[in-house]
Amino acid sequence: MTSEFDLIRRYFERPAASAALGIGDDAALLRPAPGRELAVSTDLLVEGTHFRPGAAPRALGHKALAVNLSDMAAMGADPRWALLAISLPAADEAWLAAFGEGLFALAARFGVELVGGDTTRGPLAVCVTILGEVDEGRALQRAGAVPGDDVWVSGELGAAALGLAQPDVAAAAKRLDEPEPRVALGRRLIGLASAAIDVSDGFAQDLGHILERSAVGAVVEYAALPRFQIADPELQRRCVLAGGDDYELVFTAPQRAREALRALAGELELPLSRVGFVRAEPRALEVRDAAGVPIPLGRGFDHFSA
Amino acid sequence: MTSEFDLIRRYFERPAASAALGIGDDAALLRPAPGRELAVSTDLLVEGTHFRPGAAPRALGHKALAVNLSDMAAMGADPRWALLAISLPAADEAWLAAFGEGLFALAARFGVELVGGDTTRGPLAVCVTILGEVDEGRALQRAGAVPGDDVWVSGELGAAALGLAQPDVAAAAKRLDEPEPRVALGRRLIGLASAAIDVSDGFAQDLGHILERSAVGAVVEYAALPRFQIADPELQRRCVLAGGDDYELVFTAPQRAREALRALAGELELPLSRVGFVRAEPRALEVRDAAGVPIPLGRGFDHFSA
Repeated sequence: MTSEFDLIRRYFERPAASAALGIGDDAALLRPAPGRELAVSTDLLVEGTHFRPGAAPRALGHKALAVNLSDMAAMGADPRWALLAISLPAADEAWLAAFGEGLFALAARFGVELVGGDTTRGPLAVCVTILGEVDEGRALQRAGAVPGDDVWVSGELGAAALGLAQPDVAAAAKRLDEPEPRVALGRRLIGLASAAIDVSDGFAQDLGHILERSAVGAVVEYAALPRFQIADPELQRRCVLAGGDDYELVFTAPQRAREALRALAGELELPLSRVGFVRAEPRALEVRDAAGVPIPLGRGFDHFSA
Repeated sequence: MTSEFDLIRRYFERPAASAALGIGDDAALLRPAPGRELAVSTDLLVEGTHFRPGAAPRALGHKALAVNLSDMAAMGADPRWALLAISLPAADEAWLAAFGEGLFALAARFGVELVGGDTTRGPLAVCVTILGEVDEGRALQRAGAVPGDDVWVSGELGAAALGLAQPDVAAAAKRLDEPEPRVALGRRLIGLASAAIDVSDGFAQDLGHILERSAVGAVVEYAALPRFQIADPELQRRCVLAGGDDYELVFTAPQRAREALRALAGELELPLSRVGFVRAEPRALEVRDAAGVPIPLGRGFDHFSA
């Protein structure tokens, strides 16, 4: 008889060198370093909402951790520990092995240790909680953008949304299924950026969160946005502006940071594009086309909007 | 249009006085006190597995947090912060309001602040992650029981399992739906208990975890176990030994702690029953009936066993 406990042990219990106590007790015990504060985030991925039924378990293991790592990136935090709560319709060992492979491969790359979790029977759902560390008072936040700041975007936008619309476009599907969290970039943006967020719900909506929390507006040039190659300009526009799941970083920074950011892009081998500027009023995002005309903005991906 | 963000704000975003940054950014920022370590645990409750379809949302909000508070109790930790990830088939405002009431009422009683979360559309599932603090190196663990220690249980066992089997027994159903986490007891057991766990999967199975982690065995007198009143002795036996969800604490303590534990029971107005003893061999649990004959032990509630 394979029990819940055997399953957890076989696939998820590994020595956690950096935790005082890892998986196998009622809670994990962690010791954040002195002078550091703890960044904590949780994301719940549900079959049918965040991934297709029958999604490859290895990619799902990657993505479940990647979206949380992306939250750490958006705070400039060093990811340290994760907890995994998972609901499965049946104890499918091949599925669990592949899921664990995807999750642990990404965890190892970012120095994250799995220190706790919960396994239960039910519809497929994965809830990862991540804990990271950042120097006290230094974390990147959504609030902090001021008029005159530049707006920047890492990498390119729109690939994940295209991967959702047209799964046969392999390069796009890969970006959707196996996003690359921008952890190194986030860490290096501390001291350079004034505000930051990761693109999970779509560029316009996520930049909108920065503007709202910072109580400012912004103008973005559509032509300056780094775009995944999509032949249909209308589809491209929707994917770039409203497509979610890209997990790039959108951030604001004072103009004096331009040189440092260009150098950082070269060092990290990651394009950083300056796409617009922050202004005081109106407190909303305006995206302009090449003729300077505002583009109507739909909402991004919102799980509960009509 | 009610969006995910509106919903989160309306029902779950409250000022988090003890967090450097609460709900509304990519992560919460927390500052554990110097000399304290962090206890972290996560639990996923799924409709149909952990609660009935149509379960009262207020009770569910209570229970989702209570099971996590119980993990803190089992570590002797002071609960501080929680994150809530929730998947809902629809944005039902009455449901959310009642769920929030149950959750926040319990959180307020234990001084816990909700500092982050995630809301998504999908089958009803609730994942709460809890963070607590405990003095470094002092947490109660499953390992630590030694031969000669007493085995103790708080409160009484079997009510929750009866509530599941016979929901018309109101007192039992209430224990199932609205368990009372033994946080104050857990905190006070530091320095007294040698090992501890909370009863989530059933007394025999959970005590078994202590024995396994401590590499010892134990003998328990069935007659000494504090039992919820159940007329059918066979049903009572199953509920007491293998019923889950009681969220009482089972712990071991040296004999010299007996007086202190009796005094503590009086002070907390919570019965603490001494039910058996730890021995070196065999490394298994033996529960004896009044004639001294071992009672066959079924497994507790295991989500993946046959």
